[in-house]
Amino acid sequence: MHTRTVFFVSDGTGITAETFGNAILAQFEIVPRRVRLPFIDTVDKAHQAVRQINHTAELEGRKSIVFTTLVNMEVLKVIQEGCKGMLLDMFGTFVHPLEVELGIKSHHRVGRFSDISKSKEYHDRIEAINYSLAHDDGQSHKNLEEADVILVGVSRSGKTPTSLYLAMQHGLKAANYPLIPEDFERRQLPPALVPYKKKIFGLTISAERLSEIRSERRPDSRYASLPNCRHEVAEAEAMMRRASIRWLSSTTKSIEEIATTILQEIRPERLSY
Amino acid sequence: MHTRTVFFVSDGTGITAETFGNAILAQFEIVPRRVRLPFIDTVDKAHQAVRQINHTAELEGRKSIVFTTLVNMEVLKVIQEGCKGMLLDMFGTFVHPLEVELGIKSHHRVGRFSDISKSKEYHDRIEAINYSLAHDDGQSHKNLEEADVILVGVSRSGKTPTSLYLAMQHGLKAANYPLIPEDFERRQLPPALVPYKKKIFGLTISAERLSEIRSERRPDSRYASLPNCRHEVAEAEAMMRRASIRWLSSTTKSIEEIATTILQEIRPERLSY
Repeated sequence: MHTRTVFFVSDGTGITAETFGNAILAQFEIVPRRVRLPFIDTVDKAHQAVRQINHTAELEGRKSIVFTTLVNMEVLKVIQEGCKGMLLDMFGTFVHPLEVELGIKSHHRVGRFSDISKSKEYHDRIEAINYSLAHDDGQSHKNLEEADVILVGVSRSGKTPTSLYLAMQHGLKAANYPLIPEDFERRQLPPALVPYKKKIFGLTISAERLSEIRSERRPDSRYASLPNCRHEVAEAEAMMRRASIRWLSSTTKSIEEIATTILQEIRPERLSY
Repeated sequence: MHTRTVFFVSDGTGITAETFGNAILAQFEIVPRRVRLPFIDTVDKAHQAVRQINHTAELEGRKSIVFTTLVNMEVLKVIQEGCKGMLLDMFGTFVHPLEVELGIKSHHRVGRFSDISKSKEYHDRIEAINYSLAHDDGQSHKNLEEADVILVGVSRSGKTPTSLYLAMQHGLKAANYPLIPEDFERRQLPPALVPYKKKIFGLTISAERLSEIRSERRPDSRYASLPNCRHEVAEAEAMMRRASIRWLSSTTKSIEEIATTILQEIRPERLSY
């Protein structure tokens, strides 16, 4: 039995309510049960949500926490009036002061995702995902001039998830290339990348962490052994230094943090748009 | 010249501030310039941010809108006292009432991403991304018993981006298989999938939209032609109906909406965790 349930109630996917609510909850030493109630876009569904929330609160003997991003006022009203939880109405709180500052009314329209097939931004995101997939792990040298960023690093330094994240969240075309023993012997970047040096960003990782990650895939292999990981990481870092490539260590960073840092370095204008 | 700039100021990546701020801004008919100021985690950087915000406000002759998710109180104080913008302090607004309700103090700690290499949840997300990549487009029949969901549909119905999104955002292992003319002739699902029918979810798409998408890749091909798209979509829908598979149309839906719907259908418990 959990001590407390947190609900995320939205007319849309609930992603915004959940992202924001979780960030706030992370400020507290509690492990609540979390329940997302998406697509609550009619008065009927709102009544159902109220019943679920109140039933839970009764079972647990304490108020549920309810984060909402509802924009439909009729739906919100049902929740406000019926729900025996602590309501944290994220839109209501900020939309009104913004109306005053901007001097215009908000339109209370649900979802920025409607008519997605006609959105250029969405189209570009999907294109970027396709591009990044086709250019994963040095698979293709084609159309590198189209890349927004080219990640390099030893195998399992975090290039693939970072590339896909950059594509999915930021619509960037992100290619990635492994640095392999051949490159170290030649003491040079993969030749296909040389013309695009400005777009290259390196990922490195501590040898210890790399050995851990590789051991999950191929336990007791030379590939995963600490001495080999030490050698590869040292060679890759020396190469990036020689080539004057910007790089960072992924050892303790999430893909979100790596991606944000890369954006700052490679395309600071992508942080404003 | 933009009429108004919106800043997203955070001690961390700024993703939460941006997600939430953009959702609120979507309620207004304005096209502001957006600037993300991530990693503002020292008093010095806060002063720099204040200078940038105030300089912009002066140039534009009106207040900037500033969404913050700062948890470091010293940093927040610099922004609060120095910034000539309209401050929408998303954490401050909700954290205090929650402290009262929960009866505990928040710890004002930055970022849920620290020490990410030790987080099981993060590890599982990366595993899920690797799994989904290895099982993209029917590439592998191995370990299908590990899949959380198996997407099927005609080529370009949205399976790949949806699979990657499910992995990246929800840590789900999502395989995907194309339905191809051979399957239609045999009038059966790909044989490898039959044991896993409970995990299968279908994506369909309107023939018109499919033809548009395919034409971008292979203009004037039979593959992209409207009659062929009509035929494939009709066959795929008939097959999914015969096999009693749950499915939805991706025609006007974003990957976020598709993913949320799949979660509701296949693993409703994943909406609570």
